[in-house]
This record gives sequence, C-alpha cells and structure tokens, in this order.
Amino acid sequence: MSTSPEHPGAAHPGLFVALEGTDGSGKSTQARALAEALRAAGRDVLLTREPGGSDLGELLRALILDPAHAPVDPRTEALLFAAARSAHVERTLRPALAAGRVVITDRYVDSSIAYQGAVRGLGAPRIAELNAWATDGLVPDLTVLLDAEPETAAGRRTGRERAGGGAPDRMEQETASAHGTLRAAFLARAHQEPARYLVLDAARPPEELTRRIVERVLTAAAR
Amino acid sequence: MSTSPEHPGAAHPGLFVALEGTDGSGKSTQARALAEALRAAGRDVLLTREPGGSDLGELLRALILDPAHAPVDPRTEALLFAAARSAHVERTLRPALAAGRVVITDRYVDSSIAYQGAVRGLGAPRIAELNAWATDGLVPDLTVLLDAEPETAAGRRTGRERAGGGAPDRMEQETASAHGTLRAAFLARAHQEPARYLVLDAARPPEELTRRIVERVLTAAAR
Repeated sequence: MSTSPEHPGAAHPGLFVALEGTDGSGKSTQARALAEALRAAGRDVLLTREPGGSDLGELLRALILDPAHAPVDPRTEALLFAAARSAHVERTLRPALAAGRVVITDRYVDSSIAYQGAVRGLGAPRIAELNAWATDGLVPDLTVLLDAEPETAAGRRTGRERAGGGAPDRMEQETASAHGTLRAAFLARAHQEPARYLVLDAARPPEELTRRIVERVLTAAAR
Repeated sequence: MSTSPEHPGAAHPGLFVALEGTDGSGKSTQARALAEALRAAGRDVLLTREPGGSDLGELLRALILDPAHAPVDPRTEALLFAAARSAHVERTLRPALAAGRVVITDRYVDSSIAYQGAVRGLGAPRIAELNAWATDGLVPDLTVLLDAEPETAAGRRTGRERAGGGAPDRMEQETASAHGTLRAAFLARAHQEPARYLVLDAARPPEELTRRIVERVLTAAAR
C-alpha cells in the first residue's frame, strides 16, 4: 500500500489544499473565498471538488448522489467514491500540481474516512488504506478542517435550503443525523497529523475564517 | 480483509458457479448452455454476468466499457469493477444463494485479477485483496476456467464479429494482444486452489465442454 516509485509524496512544485468538514460547516464557501483571495494575490489556482472534479468523476458524482439509487451498499459506495477520487487525482489534481498550481479541493480522503469509515461502519483504517491506494499516495500539503458544532451545521443547512440551494442530496439526507460521529472522525484525522492540519471553529465569522486560511496557505506556499 | 461475521464462507444453501476465461474462450456460450441443462434437470437457476448483474452494475458496465471514456486510469478501472461487483454480490448473488438457487456468473473476481492485476500491472495480490473486501468474502463453490490457446480465442472472436456480435468493446480492443498474460493469470489462480477449479481446454467441441461442466456442477450440487 506504499506510494509508487513514480509518485513520491509531495514531489510536485504545486500546493495541494483540501477543505474538509461536515455538511453545513461552510467548507464550500471558504474554498471559493480562498480561491478568490489567492487569485487576487497573483496565484494560479484550481478550485475543484469531490466527488467529481473530472468528466468521469462528475458522471460518478451524479450516480452516487442520486436518491434513486438508495440504498447503495456501503462497500459499493466506498468503492465508487474511491474510483471517482482516483480519476480526480490522475486527470485533474496531479497535472495541475505538476504545473505548479495551487489546487484547492472541496472534500478529499478524510470525507470518505468520516462518511464511509465511521458513519457506515466500514472502519477508518480500511477506508484510509483503500484511498491511499486509490490516490497512489497523494496527500494534501494542508488540510483545513472546519469543525462545526451541531447547531452551527444545522443552521447553515437550513439557511442554504431557504436561499434556494436545492433539496438535500442522498448523502445529505442520510448523514444529517450522524453529525457527532462525522465530527469526531474528522477531528481524529487532524489529531493524527497536527502539523498538516488547520482546525478552525466553523462558527467564527466567515471573513475571519477566510483570513486565517489564506494566511496559512500563503505561509505554506512560501516554504 | 477477513469476511464479516454475517457472511461466513459458503454458508448458503445455493450453489455458486463462476465461468472464467479470456475473451473468445466460449465462456458465455457455456454459461448459457449450463443454465439450460440445469433448468432441464429441474434446478432453479440464475444466469448473470459481470460487469453488470444489477441495475447499478449495468449502469457501471456501460460506463466502464464505453470507448468514449478511454483511457481510464488502471486504478479507477479496478475500483469501478470492484464497485460493480460489490453491488452484484449484495443485490443479486447473495439473495439468490440464500434462496437456494444455482447461480451462474459469466466472469467474477478472477477476471479482475487477470485484466487489472496482470495486464494493467496493478498486481494480482492487490486486486485479489481489493475484491475479497468488495465481495465481503463471497467465493464461488466452483470456478470453471475455459483455457484457450491464442488461436482458439482469436478464431472465436472473429467468428462472433462475422456473426454480427457487434464491434469489440473497450476491454476487448485493449486486451486481445495480452492473451498470453491473461491466460497465465487465470491458470495461476486455478493452480492455487485446484479443488475449487475445473480447467477445460476451450478448443474441445462445445457439446463435450457442456457435458463435462454439467456433470461437475451436478456432483457439487449433490454434496
């Protein structure tokens, strides 16, 4: 399960940033704000998301999130997410990083570990191992975890639906009740590798969060 | 990577038969002939195939085999096949086996080990491990390997195209040249567990092959 010889860890001139957190943590908003701030600072930025992020990935995203396919067996779901991620890595992330771009992804491996590993009960170690293979060992240089109390996340989700953000998709419907399990799984990941994580309280004002994330990314980019 | 407590090996009242072999080995013809013979003998038979075999599986089959998606990264391909297989196992194979039916599948795990493990270079052990997890340890009671010399397989493929069997799909196009590698990978599997395999020379007359397969399946079913 080691990385292949062609892809030693972080041997690319780009910077790979993942945003993680439960639904309603403000993750997607912060990913967009970070991309804008970095572009304003003259950086070449690719903003992408999971599942999806490539033609094949977007097809799989539609398949995975369609409520018509529920219930999907947990292992099938984990394998589909891993397949979409491996396409994302090979077709989108690695080429952008090799070209020296800053890549910001809205969700990455930790989301699978939290959702499929913890909530679906497949186990964090097994899902971590599956994804280490699927990504051929591509690990973010920095993972920003937006840690949300249950009330924060629930408030954001309701606000989004009222604002016409659409009905919740299959994953959103099924996991709103599992907030505590998800949150603990994300925090456990951050705890394992504190130097590679920036954990922020999602209840802080969005502008403050953006400022702190941009600061940390620019520091990492300067190294 | 062990089987889960709910699914100890072969603890079902059915009989699970997989047909494996290279393209052009006559596998699909024999699968149909076996199903007919067993039905004539009064058995309740489910004939299915991979990739596919469930609604979600058939969607994935179309996605995987569509030449428009080539080239698919080898890991992505292996994960998609494993995802389709886990859906097949949970939605189709386990329910049929639990109901005491004879299940005949045209391709199963060994095809992934041969195509993705050997031909794509991902390694047989890694693909075996991935699929042991994807299937939650569901192993055929009997695997029939139709072992074809290169000339036999090429002749059958040409015959099928002439007979209006359609243009070769993406996997067929890409792997016709890898016949020797595939054949060796299938034989290596059979060699590891001789008691669970029936290896037949695909060049023998179809009626003789059917007779020998039916004989072996009925013996297994009587146990």
